[in-house]
Amino acid sequence: MEKRSKSEVSRRQILQMGLTATVASVLPAGLLTFSSAVQAQGQEPLASWRDGAAKQAILNFVRVTTDPASPKFVSPAERIATFDQDGTLWVEHPMYSQVVYCFDRVHAVVKAKPELANVEPFKTVLSGDREAIAKLPMDDLLKVLMATLTGMSVDDFEAEVKQWLDTARDPRWKRPYTDLTYLPMIEVLTYLRTNGYKTYIVTGGGQDFVRVYGDKVYGVPPEQVVGTASGTSYGYDKEGRPFLTKEPKLLLNDNNAGKPEGIHLMIGRRPCAAFGNSTGDQQMLEYTKAGDRERLAMIVLHDDAKREYAYGPALGLPDTKVGTFTHALYDEAKSKGWIIISMKSDWNRIFAFES
Amino acid sequence: MEKRSKSEVSRRQILQMGLTATVASVLPAGLLTFSSAVQAQGQEPLASWRDGAAKQAILNFVRVTTDPASPKFVSPAERIATFDQDGTLWVEHPMYSQVVYCFDRVHAVVKAKPELANVEPFKTVLSGDREAIAKLPMDDLLKVLMATLTGMSVDDFEAEVKQWLDTARDPRWKRPYTDLTYLPMIEVLTYLRTNGYKTYIVTGGGQDFVRVYGDKVYGVPPEQVVGTASGTSYGYDKEGRPFLTKEPKLLLNDNNAGKPEGIHLMIGRRPCAAFGNSTGDQQMLEYTKAGDRERLAMIVLHDDAKREYAYGPALGLPDTKVGTFTHALYDEAKSKGWIIISMKSDWNRIFAFES
Repeated sequence: MEKRSKSEVSRRQILQMGLTATVASVLPAGLLTFSSAVQAQGQEPLASWRDGAAKQAILNFVRVTTDPASPKFVSPAERIATFDQDGTLWVEHPMYSQVVYCFDRVHAVVKAKPELANVEPFKTVLSGDREAIAKLPMDDLLKVLMATLTGMSVDDFEAEVKQWLDTARDPRWKRPYTDLTYLPMIEVLTYLRTNGYKTYIVTGGGQDFVRVYGDKVYGVPPEQVVGTASGTSYGYDKEGRPFLTKEPKLLLNDNNAGKPEGIHLMIGRRPCAAFGNSTGDQQMLEYTKAGDRERLAMIVLHDDAKREYAYGPALGLPDTKVGTFTHALYDEAKSKGWIIISMKSDWNRIFAFES
Repeated sequence: MEKRSKSEVSRRQILQMGLTATVASVLPAGLLTFSSAVQAQGQEPLASWRDGAAKQAILNFVRVTTDPASPKFVSPAERIATFDQDGTLWVEHPMYSQVVYCFDRVHAVVKAKPELANVEPFKTVLSGDREAIAKLPMDDLLKVLMATLTGMSVDDFEAEVKQWLDTARDPRWKRPYTDLTYLPMIEVLTYLRTNGYKTYIVTGGGQDFVRVYGDKVYGVPPEQVVGTASGTSYGYDKEGRPFLTKEPKLLLNDNNAGKPEGIHLMIGRRPCAAFGNSTGDQQMLEYTKAGDRERLAMIVLHDDAKREYAYGPALGLPDTKVGTFTHALYDEAKSKGWIIISMKSDWNRIFAFES
């Protein structure tokens, strides 16, 4: 498989921009729904996006699917858009935030069960030795996830995550993790909702984890968060009050093929638009794009080492432990009409906290 | 456990009516949200309900949770109401409609696989011998369910259910099964939605089954149907197009404790109001009512042998194969403030097709 340079990505985008500009030219200007949306937002939509193929693809998609006169019109009830989270809505590098949460929580788990202090993998996590932690095998990592994400009531879990979000800071920007969301993507979420789309997060991360902040951070309510989910069990406390306990029983692994499977389970409709950034999103993008009528599939390319990170084989850079943008994914995107979002070229601003 | 007569049920209802009338008298009349709702419906809400404790409980619940000046006000985002289906929204007696569907589908299954014609339980089902079919053990019933509900693509399944709904007729009323919905409950669904509630079906029946007609019949879209769910698997057809196959792998048994567990999985919020009719709904009602602030829990009592059916130990009648209203459920309802809906006393009309 040949390696692609960033200049080729740009060339492709320029071609796409030409195409979408042609499409735009044959559409009536100032459609009511579109104008209303702009007005409702109180400013130009997608303000943090530079003009280009990616921005035009979003604007055109909304225009043709919300104009009642368009042959591609989609009824409001069917307007479903799904977004991966890690690497698509917020930073995933160098480690998924939820994994950081689990490592941080090990201290509390060991405090409650001191006998774990000398048991692996807890011993290594407590040591704080980053290199040793990074080398923990998958089985050990799973033990950490199970110990920190299950075994408590759903209410206690929510309280624990809230407390962590309030106090934890990422090492690079020294900010709460929820500050590391991409402003241009928040604008897409808002823009789609303003135009009648129901926005869902479809994440490989924990469903209950993302639900704690999904509404506040993304405007996505708990019932619109689909994620990797463990089962719960119903029981009663000493006073006979019912509560749910998070069990170490995997119900849905919401990655790869698990994404369309999870979408069917939780939503029951094929999305009209889907956004991802890695091979974990491949099947969701395929499934979305395979529907009839107009469908939008977009992938975020992490090509901005200065403002965020640059990684992935598609850029000729080494693979990472997190979401991967491979050559194969790049080829599929090209052949199936998925639109690539270049963080470097398409976004004039990445985070809301940037001036 | 003592047996209760229907007159005692009525006495209790009269007492409740007195209580709710008192509550109503201290509330300001003509609240904006309430009036708007009535206006939006274009007629008196709950028109098929007789005045009584049940109707008043619904009206009062909506009034106090939607008036911004009320201490019990619930923000629109949190307004979630869940409804059991079989026996709560439509007829469940003498057999769940979905089970009838499965028996009817056996003919098509055997046509595709003729070798099953002489294999039990398919042989018995094909014989049409109702007594023998009714005696099939649970294991055999599960074989029928698996053969007719799994193994096909989700699109094929939807088409099969649609075709059945168009042609099947129930034996008593000689009408499509979707005509056997309770008009008063459709009015509750509509009334709650008009007042900003998001209505969910939370059914022991198949999630994919109910999704086929949920929107048309109840105004409940696919993403708001929670039910017993099997897993799906993602794959590709010969042309490389992705599709999902329904697998014989149970993900969620949405009955009893499975109802609050399913609500957590699929909605992630505790309902403000829940409606059921049997022990299968007990935990959903408990879970709902155990929340802080105002919560409404209601159960439909099948006490109208003439217009529908009368069954269940709470009425001193024999138990049935379908949803059970036991003495214990009756006692719990009484002690926890759940409101009983008497089909006979509370509904002046049961079906829309009645004149």
